[in-house]
Amino acid sequence: MTSFNQLREDIDAYFQQCADIQHSPERLYAPIRYILALKGKRIRAILTQLAYYVASGEAAQNALKLGAALEMFHNFTLVHDDIMDNAPTRRGEPTVHEKWDANVGILSGDTMFALSMQWIVESFPQAAGSLALAFSQAAVAVCEGQMEDMDFALEENIHISQYIEMIRKKTSVLIGASLQIGALAGGADKALSQKMYRFGELAGIAFQLQDDLMDAYPPANFGKQVGGDIIENKKTFLLLTALENANPQQLIILNQLLNETENTAGKVAGVLAIYEELEIRKHTETAIESYFGQAREMAKELLAEIPDNRFAVIAAYLEEIAGRKV
Amino acid sequence: MTSFNQLREDIDAYFQQCADIQHSPERLYAPIRYILALKGKRIRAILTQLAYYVASGEAAQNALKLGAALEMFHNFTLVHDDIMDNAPTRRGEPTVHEKWDANVGILSGDTMFALSMQWIVESFPQAAGSLALAFSQAAVAVCEGQMEDMDFALEENIHISQYIEMIRKKTSVLIGASLQIGALAGGADKALSQKMYRFGELAGIAFQLQDDLMDAYPPANFGKQVGGDIIENKKTFLLLTALENANPQQLIILNQLLNETENTAGKVAGVLAIYEELEIRKHTETAIESYFGQAREMAKELLAEIPDNRFAVIAAYLEEIAGRKV
Repeated sequence: MTSFNQLREDIDAYFQQCADIQHSPERLYAPIRYILALKGKRIRAILTQLAYYVASGEAAQNALKLGAALEMFHNFTLVHDDIMDNAPTRRGEPTVHEKWDANVGILSGDTMFALSMQWIVESFPQAAGSLALAFSQAAVAVCEGQMEDMDFALEENIHISQYIEMIRKKTSVLIGASLQIGALAGGADKALSQKMYRFGELAGIAFQLQDDLMDAYPPANFGKQVGGDIIENKKTFLLLTALENANPQQLIILNQLLNETENTAGKVAGVLAIYEELEIRKHTETAIESYFGQAREMAKELLAEIPDNRFAVIAAYLEEIAGRKV
Repeated sequence: MTSFNQLREDIDAYFQQCADIQHSPERLYAPIRYILALKGKRIRAILTQLAYYVASGEAAQNALKLGAALEMFHNFTLVHDDIMDNAPTRRGEPTVHEKWDANVGILSGDTMFALSMQWIVESFPQAAGSLALAFSQAAVAVCEGQMEDMDFALEENIHISQYIEMIRKKTSVLIGASLQIGALAGGADKALSQKMYRFGELAGIAFQLQDDLMDAYPPANFGKQVGGDIIENKKTFLLLTALENANPQQLIILNQLLNETENTAGKVAGVLAIYEELEIRKHTETAIESYFGQAREMAKELLAEIPDNRFAVIAAYLEEIAGRKV
């Protein structure tokens, strides 16, 4: 079994080589090469390839193009989301619409979506129908999730269950679909690929909640700004849980803090103090553990069902990227 | 055989009913219902259904959802193109980005693209792989065509062959793919579906050139503004042919007219006078006839190959929408 790091480097190399990406029209393909060259964790590509290996017992490398397709779709959503969010940078570099313009971002994104579908059906012709169905269903859900995310920014009362449903669609569905699609390409039947999907979906929700948590309680070597979500009033699991559990007095203070736009350091400290009083960290940890727990239950079935303990590699990979026992 | 008009009405009804279109999130699906309710000619849907009938001998209605999928994809391209072109109206009504905003237009468009793929693979599961491949290849070409169209607006010297290649990708590929996809769904083999594709592609180029011609030489009951392309300096087949054939003196006058922004009536009259001198109408008619002629050659083969003279219905439909012998 190739190392996770090797899989990541292979995807980077595949994109860098870009053998399958046309160069004309240049204004269409240059932004695609650019965004794909900004190296990420390549989680979706690696999960796809691992799921292929797990289902088939064959080398994960056989599913390199398929993994690249899932990763390209993910990058398409980033390009369009960055336009919609008016984001100036992505992974420390200018976003596509900043470096070129919004029209180029829209159309390059559309092309990445189309190419990802093309790569999917080209890479495993014998399974193309089921791959395309799983992929298109996931794509619709991702769009719905992004719209719900934009809607929530404008709405007053978001229930935690709505938030979970939003992150499920926006983030976890594609994690699940990467596993499902890899498994289908590797010859898994519908039931097995559905279990793989569900496992990924549950783990994906836990990952997103962990992301929310790290904004307020970052680990030692955390790259991002601490409290960025708090400063932006982002309706994360933490804030929504605080709003739901606060007593009237805490609610008044919390709302005052949400209206604070000048003293951001004081805002972050104030919100964190309320989080402390309401034990938001513990609540969030409990939710994360609950989703990881459900994923583990699913993993047990998959470990039992799939020969040679192959499924263990996926749990090991998720453990590595989560930095915790999954 | 159902009448063409009935097929069109069925597609309108299918969209109006929108049984397959979710209603939540509302801000995502309302624009989709809106754009699909703006009734068009539904050319792509009808061609898909006719090709299905031609290939299978079964009722065109069996391919209603498949036809609707192709039509939805076409409408996705309109929504995104309208954002990129900053177009205020579409079919006499406000464009999606005008009625909502650009973000809603981007994301509703993405969703239409994803849904069209989902409908395609759902409607004919046994052929889903080949349908998805043909569809994704067409989608990539359409994006390339749109970028070339935007590029040409900024470039000085566009050769007529580049223009033909641009309209082929932007418009004709989807006409061809509608026939190809309908034929594949109806059980056609690769060779037959490729011939159907090529027939549609050739006819599609002829249609676009006819569109170019009608801007300057409109038929009696023409809905659009006469000379709109001339006023906008749009690099149509007519203008590019004039630029290529003009003598130095005519070129000076033509360039002066292209720089005219105030006296639009004078501009149109002046350009039309140059067109007259250079026999641009005749040149364009010759090109249209050449593409229709190539399409007719392909049609002959298809008429001979497909039993019961079934292919004739497609020629008849194209004749109806072209308003001339195809």
